[in-house]
Amino acid sequence: MSLALNKEELTDYLNEVFPQIRNDFSIDELTEDSITMRLLTAERHLRPGGTVSGPSMFALADVCVYAMVLARIGRKALAVTTNCSLDFMRKPEADKDVVAHCRLLKLGRALAVGDVLMFSDGSDKPVARASMTYSIPPVHVG
Amino acid sequence: MSLALNKEELTDYLNEVFPQIRNDFSIDELTEDSITMRLLTAERHLRPGGTVSGPSMFALADVCVYAMVLARIGRKALAVTTNCSLDFMRKPEADKDVVAHCRLLKLGRALAVGDVLMFSDGSDKPVARASMTYSIPPVHVG
Amino acid sequence: MSLALNKEELTDYLNEVFPQIRNDFSIDELTEDSITMRLLTAERHLRPGGTVSGPSMFALADVCVYAMVLARIGRKALAVTTNCSLDFMRKPEADKDVVAHCRLLKLGRALAVGDVLMFSDGSDKPVARASMTYSIPPVHVG
Amino acid sequence: MSLALNKEELTDYLNEVFPQIRNDFSIDELTEDSITMRLLTAERHLRPGGTVSGPSMFALADVCVYAMVLARIGRKALAVTTNCSLDFMRKPEADKDVVAHCRLLKLGRALAVGDVLMFSDGSDKPVARASMTYSIPPVHVG
Repeated sequence: MSLALNKEELTDYLNEVFPQIRNDFSIDELTEDSITMRLLTAERHLRPGGTVSGPSMFALADVCVYAMVLARIGRKALAVTTNCSLDFMRKPEADKDVVAHCRLLKLGRALAVGDVLMFSDGSDKPVARASMTYSIPPVHVG
Repeated sequence: MSLALNKEELTDYLNEVFPQIRNDFSIDELTEDSITMRLLTAERHLRPGGTVSGPSMFALADVCVYAMVLARIGRKALAVTTNCSLDFMRKPEADKDVVAHCRLLKLGRALAVGDVLMFSDGSDKPVARASMTYSIPPVHVG
Repeated sequence: MSLALNKEELTDYLNEVFPQIRNDFSIDELTEDSITMRLLTAERHLRPGGTVSGPSMFALADVCVYAMVLARIGRKALAVTTNCSLDFMRKPEADKDVVAHCRLLKLGRALAVGDVLMFSDGSDKPVARASMTYSIPPVHVG
Repeated sequence: MSLALNKEELTDYLNEVFPQIRNDFSIDELTEDSITMRLLTAERHLRPGGTVSGPSMFALADVCVYAMVLARIGRKALAVTTNCSLDFMRKPEADKDVVAHCRLLKLGRALAVGDVLMFSDGSDKPVARASMTYSIPPVHVG
């Protein structure tokens, strides 16, 4: 139950394996069983009518659980999302970051499960809820 | 943001509208935006191999969110589940109650959303996670 | 891509491992990648107001995907549900069986996924939709 | 049960309300209760390792159900996603479009539900499955 990567190591590793999203997300806080990340909301994440797009919120939830799993198991880029469910509950504000609080609910040998609650920065009413299952490939000892 | 029914009134109302489940569930605690209920685990809830059945855990999550919504909107038995997602993470213990903590994430005019974390009584490792959406029928003013 | 168990063998095996549900469900049809089962709707499956309960529909979807997986991998009772999502779309009729059509979408070494569309017998409008993921334990060769 | 918009009208309307995605998706076929759309896979949709990103597949499923609902109810851009579930089953091929077949399962006054099966173009093994619920705002008659 300890972290394989701290916040700085995790940030570096995500930037290395996902360079295309390095300007989209940042890590606020990391503990042994939770992570808080934010979508650095920009024009490219918006939908007409001034709201954050569904795919951007999916991506935020997905990167949260992925980052949390990596923080625990270390530099293994191979974990893959197998399932997600999302509830969109309120319209996110277009000029605010979206802040996501993720709890790691299970970290098994084969499957990890996390849930995520997302808020417009500064609000305490959730805009969306997500749960994600990641499949962790077996370790091949060489 | 106040309760329309307190814990005793809610228990009475659930027993009245769902007499067939009065011996299955009880309410531990009720606040304005959360409820803790338990499945009073009995032989009829078990599966071979000594575990609580999936339908029993579905029923527990469902009654939690339903009860929470009723506690807020009052004696209206018409709210219906429109969606649920469930993650089964660990095997519940056959000789323990299943304790469910439900948070009300949204209570809109038309839709309510709650999420539920379930534990074998006495453990802090969740056995299952659920989220439920309820549709609330429009009020017809006579 | 062939069946390990035919319809009769599968029925016998389900009755053996789940004797408590043998009067609840029956198999209409089995192919290599689909199964049609029915809930033999009885008083115990109903909710006040004359509709089939959510837990009964969850159980039907769950047994469909389980049976489909067993039909392909053979007599291994150990597959466990790890995730499900359900949409409840219309009110099932209380005096009709619920007929479920399940498609096996994936049968991997570790995970199987199926989806299920449920109808009141004789209707072509779905009452509910479900998807289920089963985890298949690794085979230990002794 | 007839279409309010045909394929050309629907394409024009999507391009008008979502100009930012006009180069991402196209409609292959539209019927009264189904639509086939494709993600025109390009570099921006990929992840390291040569696969289509999760957010791109979420976006494809989302636009399918949205387009199907609009095709039936007409030029009303206000329908919003309230819930989705996704199963990722196989790795999509990086150099193929992703083709999505969507069925409209329910079109009620307040909620619409569709499910979507996605394939790498030319393959018959699904890469992902999705279901989406849309909330349809009440019509205000002026």
